[in-house]
Amino acid sequence: LKKYFEQFLKPHQILDGEALTSRTHHIWEPEQPLKAALMVLPENTDQVSKILGWCHQNKQAVVIHGGRTNLVGGTESDDHELIISLEQMNTILEIDAASRTVTVESGVILQNLQEAVQQEKLLFPLNFGAKGSAQLGGIIATNAGGLRVFRYGMTRSLVLGLEVVLADGTVISSLKKIIKDNSGYDLKQLFIGSEGTLGVITKATLRLFETPKFRVSAFVGVNSYTNVISLLKHLDGSMGGTLSGFEVMWPMTYQTLTGPSSRHAPPLPYGFEYYLLCESMGSDPNHQALFEEALDQALNQSLAEEVVMATSSAEHDWFWGIREEVDVMVDKCMYDQHFDISLAPVLIGDYAQKVIRTLSKIELITHCFCFGHLADGNIHLVVGKSDNSAGLSHQINEIVYQPLKELQGSISAEHGIGTHKKAYLQHSKNPSEIALMKTLKQALDPNYILNRGKIID
Amino acid sequence: LKKYFEQFLKPHQILDGEALTSRTHHIWEPEQPLKAALMVLPENTDQVSKILGWCHQNKQAVVIHGGRTNLVGGTESDDHELIISLEQMNTILEIDAASRTVTVESGVILQNLQEAVQQEKLLFPLNFGAKGSAQLGGIIATNAGGLRVFRYGMTRSLVLGLEVVLADGTVISSLKKIIKDNSGYDLKQLFIGSEGTLGVITKATLRLFETPKFRVSAFVGVNSYTNVISLLKHLDGSMGGTLSGFEVMWPMTYQTLTGPSSRHAPPLPYGFEYYLLCESMGSDPNHQALFEEALDQALNQSLAEEVVMATSSAEHDWFWGIREEVDVMVDKCMYDQHFDISLAPVLIGDYAQKVIRTLSKIELITHCFCFGHLADGNIHLVVGKSDNSAGLSHQINEIVYQPLKELQGSISAEHGIGTHKKAYLQHSKNPSEIALMKTLKQALDPNYILNRGKIID
Repeated sequence: LKKYFEQFLKPHQILDGEALTSRTHHIWEPEQPLKAALMVLPENTDQVSKILGWCHQNKQAVVIHGGRTNLVGGTESDDHELIISLEQMNTILEIDAASRTVTVESGVILQNLQEAVQQEKLLFPLNFGAKGSAQLGGIIATNAGGLRVFRYGMTRSLVLGLEVVLADGTVISSLKKIIKDNSGYDLKQLFIGSEGTLGVITKATLRLFETPKFRVSAFVGVNSYTNVISLLKHLDGSMGGTLSGFEVMWPMTYQTLTGPSSRHAPPLPYGFEYYLLCESMGSDPNHQALFEEALDQALNQSLAEEVVMATSSAEHDWFWGIREEVDVMVDKCMYDQHFDISLAPVLIGDYAQKVIRTLSKIELITHCFCFGHLADGNIHLVVGKSDNSAGLSHQINEIVYQPLKELQGSISAEHGIGTHKKAYLQHSKNPSEIALMKTLKQALDPNYILNRGKIID
Repeated sequence: LKKYFEQFLKPHQILDGEALTSRTHHIWEPEQPLKAALMVLPENTDQVSKILGWCHQNKQAVVIHGGRTNLVGGTESDDHELIISLEQMNTILEIDAASRTVTVESGVILQNLQEAVQQEKLLFPLNFGAKGSAQLGGIIATNAGGLRVFRYGMTRSLVLGLEVVLADGTVISSLKKIIKDNSGYDLKQLFIGSEGTLGVITKATLRLFETPKFRVSAFVGVNSYTNVISLLKHLDGSMGGTLSGFEVMWPMTYQTLTGPSSRHAPPLPYGFEYYLLCESMGSDPNHQALFEEALDQALNQSLAEEVVMATSSAEHDWFWGIREEVDVMVDKCMYDQHFDISLAPVLIGDYAQKVIRTLSKIELITHCFCFGHLADGNIHLVVGKSDNSAGLSHQINEIVYQPLKELQGSISAEHGIGTHKKAYLQHSKNPSEIALMKTLKQALDPNYILNRGKIID
């Protein structure tokens, strides 16, 4: 294995022994040493192509590493697998301010990209907690979501062009800066969200936006789910396309995120059924007044019980700091299970109520934190428990996932399937869909070398 | 052929003889009788599945008909092919106003859908000239664009769920109303924009939007391409995400669309280098004032030479009527060739100048109309000529397409490849991309029955 790679990689690009085991498959699991036959760190696309070409010929299974912030076991490996880490391919190749595009190698970290384009007064709108570690290749391979999907879309809608190395080493390069291209199949769609099982992303051209000049946000207390939906419709209609956030927290979540263990005081009193954090970004100097007026109307129409607006940058950070303080919830739990489900927004109220009620009847379950991106139909659940057995874990999974099929929801809005959710895929996809996924896998990776055992077998 | 279909289709669902030849493969070519072995009109997905299952087993080539408004020969057929028309599957199955989604059968006509959701005060933003004939199945299969792509995206970004029948009759149904779903491969992407070569779309769930309350537009005269790009950036930044149109017309186009043969008077005098039709849709009562201010700033910064705003609904119709009066240009030409190319917006000025200059040197070329969706990087060319020979046609194609590869553009932004542009695909896609397209075709349609000879061989 090593011998072949030594022909075209430098010694520091090939890791084994302690250099390998001192690494981990996940940045938040430092106690688990990395398992792998070998790790290689290519510095360019040609090297990725040579590595994969050899692996394809020799049926060598490969696991791809980016920032390793994935939450579904997407970077797990065994002793026989070759790890390809793209961390050395971390150059921002071009920011084209006039075309409002950026072209990057796949090892570029999201936050570095955000900051670089900010200097050109442009916005790369993708934003989520792990931005300081997550790399663009992994972000695209998992079609990451985050906090501004309702306004700007998932990663998929931000990708204009991709360079991908197929399982057999073929390079598919199309780094066009155009938003419209109907010249044949849109091949990049295959690689976005397929978790590295169909190809390895090496470069991407991404869409940038003008930075909105004004950002306003407000916490809103609401007492019925019908009103939550009416408020969403009202604000979205009133703000004319500038609504950028509509986050919901159930009471236990809000109380914990603003309670004694949190760094943040509560902007609204306790006692409401739903806490909404709403945000709008626009360039109208009148923007804040418009938002205030829309919220006043919501109060007058009894859609909302109480409203508090962020009027300074500090208050803004306070409000969003609450939303992003996920650790406070996790710290309350001896063990925890995370969920990331997707449903039509109108169905979420009933669904969450039933799931919370069912889970709370199980003695070993200590917490059920519910929150998420309501406008996107995406809620996260953090279930705390005092027992880490596989039986309880499976029981919880079934309670959360089982209703989704009938409701036409998804077991993963953002995080993907990886290895952790593979056993539950049938709650989201029917057998003919899974069969078609296998047809695609077979067509693109006939020797089954790429991220083997991830998503499908 | 007919015998099998008679087992499960009623007589009026099977057409041959005069009933067949009285139809056409394109609604704008009434003089060409339809060529086909037989035409079937399924009324539900099960029938489509049975028809395709039989065709797959018997290697019977199939051509799919929707509204037949496609501009690239995508619905052409020969005497041996079976035509499946989806026009009988034309029911709007559900408008879910709370979830802001609509579910349709694929034979629903775009304008009918637009009007139905308007009654629920919602907006399906897709809009283009052929809306009175084009059917949703074909619209999705060709990933149609149109007038509001910059704000709302191509058809691809409006599709939440699809039901598709594969070549072998397998039904892939996922009509979810969710905007986020990372549970495995996003299979619908395969069928959007692949022009019916990978599967037949039978139903779709589409995303709806709140209708913006105010719409403002303006004609702007600009004298340098640098200023065109600066104006786009300025307006997009000033309007904070509400810019919905930024259409450009070169002088010959503007003069013709507002000249003696047109129903429309010119809103701006002749003599400018570029005429821009800008539109913003928002819900701020202050919206028109904001747009005026942004345009005033453009005048003060000498980005624009002259501005005229539409201040009434009648003026609005006047302005957009000019843009949509494409027939006036076509009528000037003895013969014409249409193009639909895509480039990064910054590159369009030089490209168009060179192409217009080269074309105008050819004696048999009488007109070169240039216009399009500049914010999308998409321009249309209508080239008029006094000779209809294949040689001249090819020469014009080469002049228009040849520069695109180096500039990383596309030979088709919106219209697709079909049969007409197949010979030029290599200007947009490199050999490894075309090979991957063939791999996908082989995997999904191994007997090569679906829209044979369209896009790729």
